[in-house]
Amino acid sequence: MTVRVGVIGGGQLARMMIAPAVELGLDLRVLAEDHGMSAQLAATAVGDYRDLETVRAFVRDVDVVTFDHEHVPQEVLRALIADGVQVHPGPDALQFAQDKLVMRARLAELGVPQPDWAAVSDAEELQRFIDDHGGGAVVKTPRGGYDGKGVRVVRAGAEASDWFAGLAEGESLLAEELVSFTRELAQQIARRPGGEMVAYPVVETVQRDGVCAEVIAPAPGTSARLVQVAEQIGRTIAEGVGVTGMLAVELFETDDERILVNELAMRPHNSGHWSQDGAITGQFEQHLRAVADLPLGRTEPRAAWTVMVNILGGPTEGTLEDRFTQAMTEHPEAKIHTYGKAPRPGRKVGHVNVAGSDLDDVVYVARAAAAQFL
Amino acid sequence: MTVRVGVIGGGQLARMMIAPAVELGLDLRVLAEDHGMSAQLAATAVGDYRDLETVRAFVRDVDVVTFDHEHVPQEVLRALIADGVQVHPGPDALQFAQDKLVMRARLAELGVPQPDWAAVSDAEELQRFIDDHGGGAVVKTPRGGYDGKGVRVVRAGAEASDWFAGLAEGESLLAEELVSFTRELAQQIARRPGGEMVAYPVVETVQRDGVCAEVIAPAPGTSARLVQVAEQIGRTIAEGVGVTGMLAVELFETDDERILVNELAMRPHNSGHWSQDGAITGQFEQHLRAVADLPLGRTEPRAAWTVMVNILGGPTEGTLEDRFTQAMTEHPEAKIHTYGKAPRPGRKVGHVNVAGSDLDDVVYVARAAAAQFL
Repeated sequence: MTVRVGVIGGGQLARMMIAPAVELGLDLRVLAEDHGMSAQLAATAVGDYRDLETVRAFVRDVDVVTFDHEHVPQEVLRALIADGVQVHPGPDALQFAQDKLVMRARLAELGVPQPDWAAVSDAEELQRFIDDHGGGAVVKTPRGGYDGKGVRVVRAGAEASDWFAGLAEGESLLAEELVSFTRELAQQIARRPGGEMVAYPVVETVQRDGVCAEVIAPAPGTSARLVQVAEQIGRTIAEGVGVTGMLAVELFETDDERILVNELAMRPHNSGHWSQDGAITGQFEQHLRAVADLPLGRTEPRAAWTVMVNILGGPTEGTLEDRFTQAMTEHPEAKIHTYGKAPRPGRKVGHVNVAGSDLDDVVYVARAAAAQFL
Repeated sequence: MTVRVGVIGGGQLARMMIAPAVELGLDLRVLAEDHGMSAQLAATAVGDYRDLETVRAFVRDVDVVTFDHEHVPQEVLRALIADGVQVHPGPDALQFAQDKLVMRARLAELGVPQPDWAAVSDAEELQRFIDDHGGGAVVKTPRGGYDGKGVRVVRAGAEASDWFAGLAEGESLLAEELVSFTRELAQQIARRPGGEMVAYPVVETVQRDGVCAEVIAPAPGTSARLVQVAEQIGRTIAEGVGVTGMLAVELFETDDERILVNELAMRPHNSGHWSQDGAITGQFEQHLRAVADLPLGRTEPRAAWTVMVNILGGPTEGTLEDRFTQAMTEHPEAKIHTYGKAPRPGRKVGHVNVAGSDLDDVVYVARAAAAQFL
């Protein structure tokens, strides 16, 4: 009997599960937010993932449920579990990706290195945190932020007054120390329901304006010790939060070679897109294997270097298709992945992977191909 | 505007176009012979490809038509052309893949090396051909054969009497000399409508009972001269028959290092499946690029060696899914491709690709993974 995997959310992550699902022989079904979304081809339902009855109707014909995003409410997830539905990752794990305060508390319990942090419920508390941490802090809304939204660097407590004003009784913001980091890294882990795990090589991520712009796999100039530490942090978190499927751990590397956990994602993540063309098993295939409780695939790189560059926004002149064609003409070695989205400035509409033996060449080609879209 | 590619035929070749179509952002639509076929996910119509009105209705919503197989009748194809439909490969090219006598005559005109051959219309003519060629011959029905069907090795003209009896007025069989070959090779070429071509490295194919069993890419122990000759033969044929999309040229290598053309296929072909995981651009992506008139991708291997082993028939005990799981457990480096077909003895239900730097290891793992299905 073919395993039917239901994905809640019809974005590009669900879209990129289609290719490996076809090859693995899994029956992928998507609950999309709307018609014509990225994962349209596999969409079997359209509706609101916050509505329990919509989700219940969708999951009736699937064997396991997974996600394109982490926004499905806990009460919906817990109702599915009560119905006896297989949900991966489950609500107990997902809460740590849904609420940054809950995550920080759990990482502290796990003894994982992370920036100093505190829950702050008003501007005075934030000011004290700032005073204790060198005159600055990062303030985050615990829920709903992504791609730099819900994140603000502040030098005074009053700079977050608008966010404090919006808090309900008992709610707090997350204050974190401003880490003096030299670069950002990301560690991918896949974990099956029974606990079996595999780790990908740690990668370097380059953010621009809070959005992932570029990933180099594996992270260049990384000591064997650091590679091991990153993997160990990833494994500790994966087990400690009980994630199933892919886990992405975003990391800061400091100038004294420490690594600190920045964010978590419990799904295929932008920092792992390189693996589609650069690893023996891409993260989308691996996520499907893990959530369907199939044996995990090997994670070794297939080339010395793989570089991923996001395609943001859209062309100012000509159509997006013309730009894709131009990029394909000039860079026949580039693997271009499209998301089927209408272009808007700053919107991720695709990405480019390039693999090879010379890092400078690979970076050059990947950037040049993506630059066709600027 | 997204290019809509219509594929006639819903088998595994159409299925394996789905993954690259999603990533390239092409809208793939399939006319399947029946419900529940391999390419089900992309099926937008079900019907008989020999019926012009069925095909006409299907192609109304596509920009370009291509194929899962070569069996669409010339009169249907020519009616589409007359309607102004883009058909790749077109009927002028496809005739050479549909009729082996027409192919032999054209290859002779092109000066391409091939076995001695003749059109024979009765047992006496065949006997004369046998007498002139060392006492044996291969007899083929010019049309409709595949995977060893419609091919017979004979030592006497009378051994094909049943086939001669079935010929209509004016029809002939194809007689070919029994080539004393040391191994079989295959050359893949992709060609765009404007004539741009790329060649894949020549591969070694191992047939069992007339069916492709195993492919080693690139062909081991092949001289630079032979690689060049195979590519040149492929290019000459691709241009000479005017193919668009993928062309596979099956070749015999003789003990005196000559190569002779055995068969042609004008579509992604079993001998090119290795490229899905072993080349920068897989043959299914390349076929789509070529027929949609997009720039062609690079064809270089991504590893020193890639080996493809077909999964034939099905398990005698347990389910096919159990066997896939077992193969994934024992061989996490194997890339398993499933066709969504019910198992039957000898039926191709999937294949395994394994890539690596040591040929013996790669062959061992690919065979061991496929052997899980015996």
